[in-house]
Amino acid sequence: MSALPYDHHRLCELAGELIVNVRELSARGWTPATSSNFSHRLDARHAAITVSGRDKGRLRESDIMVVDLDGAAVGSEHRPSAETLLHTQLYRRFGDIGCILHTHSHNQTVASRLYAGAGHVRLEGYELLKAFTGNTTHEAAIDVPVLPNSQDMTTLAAQVDALLDRQTLWGYLIDGHGLYAWGRDTAEARRHLEAFEFLLGCELELRRLTGR
Amino acid sequence: MSALPYDHHRLCELAGELIVNVRELSARGWTPATSSNFSHRLDARHAAITVSGRDKGRLRESDIMVVDLDGAAVGSEHRPSAETLLHTQLYRRFGDIGCILHTHSHNQTVASRLYAGAGHVRLEGYELLKAFTGNTTHEAAIDVPVLPNSQDMTTLAAQVDALLDRQTLWGYLIDGHGLYAWGRDTAEARRHLEAFEFLLGCELELRRLTGR
Amino acid sequence: MSALPYDHHRLCELAGELIVNVRELSARGWTPATSSNFSHRLDARHAAITVSGRDKGRLRESDIMVVDLDGAAVGSEHRPSAETLLHTQLYRRFGDIGCILHTHSHNQTVASRLYAGAGHVRLEGYELLKAFTGNTTHEAAIDVPVLPNSQDMTTLAAQVDALLDRQTLWGYLIDGHGLYAWGRDTAEARRHLEAFEFLLGCELELRRLTGR
Amino acid sequence: MSALPYDHHRLCELAGELIVNVRELSARGWTPATSSNFSHRLDARHAAITVSGRDKGRLRESDIMVVDLDGAAVGSEHRPSAETLLHTQLYRRFGDIGCILHTHSHNQTVASRLYAGAGHVRLEGYELLKAFTGNTTHEAAIDVPVLPNSQDMTTLAAQVDALLDRQTLWGYLIDGHGLYAWGRDTAEARRHLEAFEFLLGCELELRRLTGR
Repeated sequence: MSALPYDHHRLCELAGELIVNVRELSARGWTPATSSNFSHRLDARHAAITVSGRDKGRLRESDIMVVDLDGAAVGSEHRPSAETLLHTQLYRRFGDIGCILHTHSHNQTVASRLYAGAGHVRLEGYELLKAFTGNTTHEAAIDVPVLPNSQDMTTLAAQVDALLDRQTLWGYLIDGHGLYAWGRDTAEARRHLEAFEFLLGCELELRRLTGR
Repeated sequence: MSALPYDHHRLCELAGELIVNVRELSARGWTPATSSNFSHRLDARHAAITVSGRDKGRLRESDIMVVDLDGAAVGSEHRPSAETLLHTQLYRRFGDIGCILHTHSHNQTVASRLYAGAGHVRLEGYELLKAFTGNTTHEAAIDVPVLPNSQDMTTLAAQVDALLDRQTLWGYLIDGHGLYAWGRDTAEARRHLEAFEFLLGCELELRRLTGR
Repeated sequence: MSALPYDHHRLCELAGELIVNVRELSARGWTPATSSNFSHRLDARHAAITVSGRDKGRLRESDIMVVDLDGAAVGSEHRPSAETLLHTQLYRRFGDIGCILHTHSHNQTVASRLYAGAGHVRLEGYELLKAFTGNTTHEAAIDVPVLPNSQDMTTLAAQVDALLDRQTLWGYLIDGHGLYAWGRDTAEARRHLEAFEFLLGCELELRRLTGR
Repeated sequence: MSALPYDHHRLCELAGELIVNVRELSARGWTPATSSNFSHRLDARHAAITVSGRDKGRLRESDIMVVDLDGAAVGSEHRPSAETLLHTQLYRRFGDIGCILHTHSHNQTVASRLYAGAGHVRLEGYELLKAFTGNTTHEAAIDVPVLPNSQDMTTLAAQVDALLDRQTLWGYLIDGHGLYAWGRDTAEARRHLEAFEFLLGCELELRRLTGR
């Protein structure tokens, strides 16, 4: 029996943490039709990520697998999420990113369609901007980038890399698709995800009410 | 005691699966006022289907009955759903359809009213189009047909048959009424149902926001 | 010890049934800020009704009291709901009404404000019209009356009586206030309530989308 | 071992009460991204308040701490909520205020942005105005003040004090931020909070529908 190249006990811990969070996000309707994917860094060379196509509302330990930071399955016959490369590129680039949450809420999908032309959604004047690590006031503005969608993950990853060369980011939208958000640990990634979702929802609501 | 013409153990299994799914859909508000109906193929000649008029949020085994593929009750005094024929016509026509879910959500009902004139709702540009079996890209378009409503199930069934002669379908709307969605098994039917619901919701939201 | 003028065992049964239903309605947000009230006929001369001001999301047996059909408390020091007279007038007038549910949902309150001028909300073309006992087709129309609000229950009750002289009703709205719905038993009252809520929601949504 | 300057048993009781209420409010989505804060008066000189930055959906006893009425931590190394001063100023000024609930719902945030220019949101004609202690009719109007946001709590507190010099209040909005609501005990504060939330939601909905 060959030893696993990662700490199995740590994997079980992280899988449990992901499962609790993903089921809560699913209960809010942010993972329709088995969409969305979720990961946590396992160590310097591996990440735990959801298996492709699983029902996120019923997620359990066997729905979480290990990949290396090139996105290849490690010790598993399962297929990782089609978008694994968008996770591993962040773990490779930033040593302090610990958790990535990708969801498909209504607000995220609708905002991505509406602001795809502009290329970003501007969020400003909200107290909740302080939820993003590094922000200490509501007198700030954040531009959430909206990338064109593609079925070619290399293309998408190159667009993300170009964005990250220019600015600090805690998340981005993909047109017609959904949101990627991340943080140094699960709690921070979840806080960022909830803040993006809430503020995108407020922007859509203000747009409805003011006809801008 | 005469033997049942179907496998009772298989019926219990499928009833359990239907009950879990129907209660979850009901908790989202997609089955108001005892509306909606749900079925699963039992074998080549029978299907399990919800009894007419039962509260879907409290569904239990005695609320599921067996019908043959002409829609006649088998081994039961209960009345099957009034729309049983819309289920059995699909099981008769396509040997690989295993499960049919019919719901009445707000989005489904409102979209059916708004697009009844056009005869269909076009869904395009969404990543979630990949949730429909056979689709592999967001660069696709799906037209969800909207049929006129009728209390005559033979009329409705004939309209559905005419549609199916022309195109591959995973679901259709009936005006002022709701959505039929199906799949080869419960998981696929549920995934298709959630994808239709989500995308119809996005279309309505974009229409609200852009005033199209 | 004097005997109670009603069947205590029957009261306990009905209280249990009301509690289950009221807590579910409360979980949907239809009873904000301790508002709303609920009753069930106990016998020819009594009804069980919620005590005034109780939190409907935590309703329990001690929050249900008995009144006679003039609205006076029977065997209890508690104050019945301020609107008790609107319940007892229906039990007095129609021997076959068994249950009355009064809620304050968003849709009910907003629709009542918007249609107070017209005096009614017309519901037509919906399959769910069949949820109202006596209706067998979507090719029907129901006018839900909207009464002016008043803190004088005698005034409100007189308006309701005048309505009932003219038409068969399963419910009415009060402007800025909420909905009364009823049925021969709890299940029927609940079905009518859910149908009103759903159809009012569809009407508001269509109005938003079409700018009528 | 020095004695605590407050009644520890009373603290445990109040913490339990706060935890139940905060978790319910969080489940409705009113505390996104670890925002919002909640307190209860402990005695004439102390209050129990949520520790800064905790997830309100998982709130537990160790997330509640004691402060004096100047906002300084008592017997704890934790940092109280950044907005503690907005709580303690009310406890100092009004001996009968027992509980303060500050939330960040969508409706509250959006309404605060829309009505910041006017300086208040007028609520009138609603039966639910009776939920505010002291109101006995729907024929009343309440103006909910909207304060400019600030990261300087002394500035915000001075604005609140100026408001309270002019009128009786059960709550106020802060622009882009959220709602403060209070009452003599937890039940009353909760009732006021739910009434503000419901009525702000109705106002936004009417504005959407009428294009005012």
